[in-house]
Amino acid sequence: MSRLLLNCDIGESFGNWTLGLDAEVMPFIDCANIACGFHAGDPSIMRKTVSLALQHGVQVGAHPAYQDLAGFGRRSMAYAPQELQDLLHYQIGALDGICRAQGTRVSYVKPHGAMYNDMMANPAQLRAVIQAVAAYDKSLPLMLMATRDNRAAQALGEEFGVTLWFEAFADRAYDSAGHLLSRQLPGAVHHDPDSILQQALTIARGEPLIASDGSALRLQADTLCVHGDNASSVAAVRRIREALKAQ
Amino acid sequence: MSRLLLNCDIGESFGNWTLGLDAEVMPFIDCANIACGFHAGDPSIMRKTVSLALQHGVQVGAHPAYQDLAGFGRRSMAYAPQELQDLLHYQIGALDGICRAQGTRVSYVKPHGAMYNDMMANPAQLRAVIQAVAAYDKSLPLMLMATRDNRAAQALGEEFGVTLWFEAFADRAYDSAGHLLSRQLPGAVHHDPDSILQQALTIARGEPLIASDGSALRLQADTLCVHGDNASSVAAVRRIREALKAQ
Amino acid sequence: MSRLLLNCDIGESFGNWTLGLDAEVMPFIDCANIACGFHAGDPSIMRKTVSLALQHGVQVGAHPAYQDLAGFGRRSMAYAPQELQDLLHYQIGALDGICRAQGTRVSYVKPHGAMYNDMMANPAQLRAVIQAVAAYDKSLPLMLMATRDNRAAQALGEEFGVTLWFEAFADRAYDSAGHLLSRQLPGAVHHDPDSILQQALTIARGEPLIASDGSALRLQADTLCVHGDNASSVAAVRRIREALKAQ
Amino acid sequence: MSRLLLNCDIGESFGNWTLGLDAEVMPFIDCANIACGFHAGDPSIMRKTVSLALQHGVQVGAHPAYQDLAGFGRRSMAYAPQELQDLLHYQIGALDGICRAQGTRVSYVKPHGAMYNDMMANPAQLRAVIQAVAAYDKSLPLMLMATRDNRAAQALGEEFGVTLWFEAFADRAYDSAGHLLSRQLPGAVHHDPDSILQQALTIARGEPLIASDGSALRLQADTLCVHGDNASSVAAVRRIREALKAQ
Repeated sequence: MSRLLLNCDIGESFGNWTLGLDAEVMPFIDCANIACGFHAGDPSIMRKTVSLALQHGVQVGAHPAYQDLAGFGRRSMAYAPQELQDLLHYQIGALDGICRAQGTRVSYVKPHGAMYNDMMANPAQLRAVIQAVAAYDKSLPLMLMATRDNRAAQALGEEFGVTLWFEAFADRAYDSAGHLLSRQLPGAVHHDPDSILQQALTIARGEPLIASDGSALRLQADTLCVHGDNASSVAAVRRIREALKAQ
Repeated sequence: MSRLLLNCDIGESFGNWTLGLDAEVMPFIDCANIACGFHAGDPSIMRKTVSLALQHGVQVGAHPAYQDLAGFGRRSMAYAPQELQDLLHYQIGALDGICRAQGTRVSYVKPHGAMYNDMMANPAQLRAVIQAVAAYDKSLPLMLMATRDNRAAQALGEEFGVTLWFEAFADRAYDSAGHLLSRQLPGAVHHDPDSILQQALTIARGEPLIASDGSALRLQADTLCVHGDNASSVAAVRRIREALKAQ
Repeated sequence: MSRLLLNCDIGESFGNWTLGLDAEVMPFIDCANIACGFHAGDPSIMRKTVSLALQHGVQVGAHPAYQDLAGFGRRSMAYAPQELQDLLHYQIGALDGICRAQGTRVSYVKPHGAMYNDMMANPAQLRAVIQAVAAYDKSLPLMLMATRDNRAAQALGEEFGVTLWFEAFADRAYDSAGHLLSRQLPGAVHHDPDSILQQALTIARGEPLIASDGSALRLQADTLCVHGDNASSVAAVRRIREALKAQ
Repeated sequence: MSRLLLNCDIGESFGNWTLGLDAEVMPFIDCANIACGFHAGDPSIMRKTVSLALQHGVQVGAHPAYQDLAGFGRRSMAYAPQELQDLLHYQIGALDGICRAQGTRVSYVKPHGAMYNDMMANPAQLRAVIQAVAAYDKSLPLMLMATRDNRAAQALGEEFGVTLWFEAFADRAYDSAGHLLSRQLPGAVHHDPDSILQQALTIARGEPLIASDGSALRLQADTLCVHGDNASSVAAVRRIREALKAQ
């Protein structure tokens, strides 16, 4: 079994506001998606988060977003492809500046919220994101969502020479196309810790999940998205971490 | 005569708002102090400004500021030294990200507005700025103001291994300590193009200026701060450029 | 002929950035759509703009927008209807606060940019805007776009007891449904001053325009949207003002 | 014994970030100082907070601040007196707009953080704040800090016809001039619930406190500032509320 990296959104506090149990979850993850100031994370929060990642040997990823602090980067906004690239270069660079002062570097990129969703839904946006990463540094992998068929994304990655890291979710139900079931639907989110652990292990082993229509869904995933929002999600990450190690 | 670099604040448009004659002044300067998004300059403006600098072989400098878009970075704000360093790393990095996508790099740093003034007035702030530049990249010079006696600043630069580029002004009157005369005072700003040109040449030759109290003031300057705000300031820069070349 | 009010977007400077010839166009308009800080206009600009409107006896209108300073409120953003109402109450109130300090009040509302376009394209957004105005003050008219058939909007206005002021454009071509022709299409924008004046007078007289497909298009308009961006648009406003008076 | 109002900073969440136990503390206070968007509080948070205040019959106060979201309005910023007035009119108006949509109004003003401290330290700032409140609505009281000698502030209030509500603190030690002891000093903040309650009652009865130098300090206070940050501060408010009622 190849190694499944655990990635987690982190550093999403801002100024006087605290969000997430960063210190608690950091010891159990491989990749920290660190907010870059546009949806969360001010320069001082970013410094503390990078420092925490370094302490635990966790890779620092840029987690850029649309410029919408009040909406936490979750509202779709109409950016032209060139503007989107500019946004990415600015934010990846900003986090890289914070990293450099601590002797480290950004080592991958994962867009946040609406920017992530729009990139998955709109090939022109995905192209712009991949092109932006390539122009910044071809050696940085881009994290995006694993679906039933990753070939279109793979082709774009190859066109620009950018490595793609596909991510899957242990706590979400999938439809047969390999898209996440809408949170509005019953059963879309798994709350039971055992189910979450089982889905994580199934993905790690490369075995198929059962999609919402009962069909088998095999996801080619390099990384699993986990959450550090609260004590129970941190506990789930810890269990996943230990189970993966034990294999 | 050693070469006197011409530096100019540039890229200070924002979104739909245009400020300054960037394209007109760029051909005549050596160093472009490019706004980094906190007092002016959004990611797309930054890209266009870096591209314009590249076209004219002008060095790209980071022009970081306090986070105060409405006040154009001109209002003093109480940042702790560590916060100030974080601000600098974020903004230098952000501009470096934009540069990297065009195959170039930030090559020096000059703080803007109130951050610049506070750094000159407060040794703890100057130390934080120099320390921030050193942590980012010791090879980046820091631009700051030449006064009668640069030794305290020089000592700090040496402590951290950072090169300092001292700047002088051709269009401002100085007091005997080598500080700019307050704009409130009569004669503080030169408007006559010939006087501006003469002061530039005097500085370039390393000859003394006449301070406001009539005393001789010799400024050790590496660079001259020029302005691209309007047609007459651009014309002044052009004359200075040509006169310096002719020497 | 009933009176056709001239309305103009105004107060769109911000901090150190100036936009538009506010002082030049104010004498010729009836209604000033004043930016409320979210796409343009800071509190001090707002004060100066309200003061200028008062000097010329011009009605003060709130010109609220999505929160997107870098995008000048021109990017569509996904706000829920309740959030949209909150945005409107905040911004109308803010301008009303500035007005109150000068002994006047906001007297109508016209959404800006993408908020305006989304309201015209999406009945749920239009409902939210009308409901927001009604909750704030039923006596404030809402400005929106006149199309061939205003009945759906009229019905909503009546449901909430809000007066609607329909606006038309003198410098834009219309399609047969009474929508503005996309700026991408040839002939979409009139640049010839005489054509602009003629279209203004045709609308003022309640006579039909010729739509892009050659059909007659009668717009029921209460107000005409004019522009103070540059000298030629101000000259056009002046001519329209004088021609309307002369009738 | 005259009634001592309990006031509390509230509505200081922002977007996706939550701060303070607003729902828990609201039942025990008289006056809610509601953030107006510049240091905390977005339009939707403001709506929910006003609604909560209405439910509990609590007065809505505007809690305006410098424009510094990342610094939570706690960093001093150099605003000119006219700019400060513009800031106040904008923010009081914005909250009033939110209130109006719920059939209520702002009923007093209390500046936040650095704006509050600067107003207490600098008579020109206090004059600007009082003048701003007077221009907005002379019937709105301004909350400010009770010291040993309130006469200078009282004189300014009378000059502009603005009622002043002086506030005292139950959990802070005072020096002999009636200023709060710096938080850096030992004993500056009371943590013991009984001490807090006793100080509240002493102030409510108009009896003197013991200042840090052992002298008697009589504060003329109209209101007591309480906190809803965490469970223990809410418990303290509840005890104070009950003890005041019992008198």
